[in-house]
Amino acid sequence: MALTNSRKVRIEWGDCDPAGIIFYPRYFEIFDASTAALFERALGMTKFAMVKTLPFAGFPLVRTRAKFMRPTRFGDDVTVDTSVTFNRSSFDIAHKLSLDGAVCVECSETRVWVVRDETGALKSHPVPEEVLAKFR
Amino acid sequence: MALTNSRKVRIEWGDCDPAGIIFYPRYFEIFDASTAALFERALGMTKFAMVKTLPFAGFPLVRTRAKFMRPTRFGDDVTVDTSVTFNRSSFDIAHKLSLDGAVCVECSETRVWVVRDETGALKSHPVPEEVLAKFR
Amino acid sequence: MALTNSRKVRIEWGDCDPAGIIFYPRYFEIFDASTAALFERALGMTKFAMVKTLPFAGFPLVRTRAKFMRPTRFGDDVTVDTSVTFNRSSFDIAHKLSLDGAVCVECSETRVWVVRDETGALKSHPVPEEVLAKFR
Amino acid sequence: MALTNSRKVRIEWGDCDPAGIIFYPRYFEIFDASTAALFERALGMTKFAMVKTLPFAGFPLVRTRAKFMRPTRFGDDVTVDTSVTFNRSSFDIAHKLSLDGAVCVECSETRVWVVRDETGALKSHPVPEEVLAKFR
Repeated sequence: MALTNSRKVRIEWGDCDPAGIIFYPRYFEIFDASTAALFERALGMTKFAMVKTLPFAGFPLVRTRAKFMRPTRFGDDVTVDTSVTFNRSSFDIAHKLSLDGAVCVECSETRVWVVRDETGALKSHPVPEEVLAKFR
Repeated sequence: MALTNSRKVRIEWGDCDPAGIIFYPRYFEIFDASTAALFERALGMTKFAMVKTLPFAGFPLVRTRAKFMRPTRFGDDVTVDTSVTFNRSSFDIAHKLSLDGAVCVECSETRVWVVRDETGALKSHPVPEEVLAKFR
Repeated sequence: MALTNSRKVRIEWGDCDPAGIIFYPRYFEIFDASTAALFERALGMTKFAMVKTLPFAGFPLVRTRAKFMRPTRFGDDVTVDTSVTFNRSSFDIAHKLSLDGAVCVECSETRVWVVRDETGALKSHPVPEEVLAKFR
Repeated sequence: MALTNSRKVRIEWGDCDPAGIIFYPRYFEIFDASTAALFERALGMTKFAMVKTLPFAGFPLVRTRAKFMRPTRFGDDVTVDTSVTFNRSSFDIAHKLSLDGAVCVECSETRVWVVRDETGALKSHPVPEEVLAKFR
């Protein structure tokens, strides 16, 4: 039960810091969007449509770890390869960000599937079967 | 002496706030990248290459104004149309951000072309003739 | 019916771009937080408490304009002075951002007070009398 | 050779996502500023002054890992405790972010001290003795 998505991302001037290289929190913005893109590809709907049609209020992080091997710069068109492995109410994501074939960042995430309970609070929830089915 | 560039931008989950709509400073990130994209299209080089090869250290803003007509949301694929008019050491940019043909935001900017002087400080500089020529 | 709030903000490394000066969309993040701080001071509650206890779902922008007179840099502790003037369902905000007494940025905003209708959509709503009373 | 710094940070509306909780890349912005604040406290100078006066061009990340135990929301005033352990050309940072005494996020970083070589490229460099002395 795994699927991979690959997407191109342009590193922008405003993503970079006074050293001229990417300010690393921007990588996590890129990774969050890459996780969403993987689900969009598998489910055939945007995260907005997921919120509207599924028992779903987001998939916040439980943990993440990242290794930064090579810096990237504004003007770089990087590739992000993202794959997922499902547990019951959580899932693991692996991102590999590369430039011209050379890996620049590796990142792994564990996220939980959450819904809103009657009071509006977020609580974890098993990943819906209809979601899992799309990744098979 | 004008050129227009059009690009598609995906509004992401992380661009949106607790009201579920885009957090407006994100529009200015999009507009800054759209200004860079216009120059990249005209000059055939990225902003990084511009810094390396031209008398150029950036084009900081002098003023901007924006009108927000319709909100956008995560999952929206918006179109940004950007055009420029040159003055001597500055230029005016107009951005129009639309969704499905309906204008959501209009923004105008005045920016100055800057270089580094001998001390490393930023100072304004006429837009190089080789740049202007590419926009004709 | 006006109240002013003043706050100190540190410009951070990650707010700055490869030219070594602040990336201007960060100013709008600062201004948005400064508007919230003004309401927090007047109402004696955070924006989170406002959402919980008032007919209130946010105050999105209708328009903004800003003039950038002097750049700021990481390590700068700037002062933001923010004042408000109320209309019926909207209000005007003025921000003045200064460093060591010299004005760096002036910004004006028009925002609308919004609530959620029965369908969950955002719609404008008169600024509640209990809010206006706190600013008198 | 360790020093700890503690600082308060307000979680803002614009730091939060449509689920109403902080968008996690914002934590890394907070942690980056917290690392800078630790050095500022020890050295008695801002990161800007460090760039001007030390052999120093930044301290980019080599790796980071974070555990997210409790979400935070706009209006929360969190405490970030940051400590450092030095190696030769790198150092390890630990951040603990808590709200009302409850730990919300734990994060560890490894960073390298970098300078510019003659060509302007970034290269690692031993942490200067004058810096280490300030942490003793």
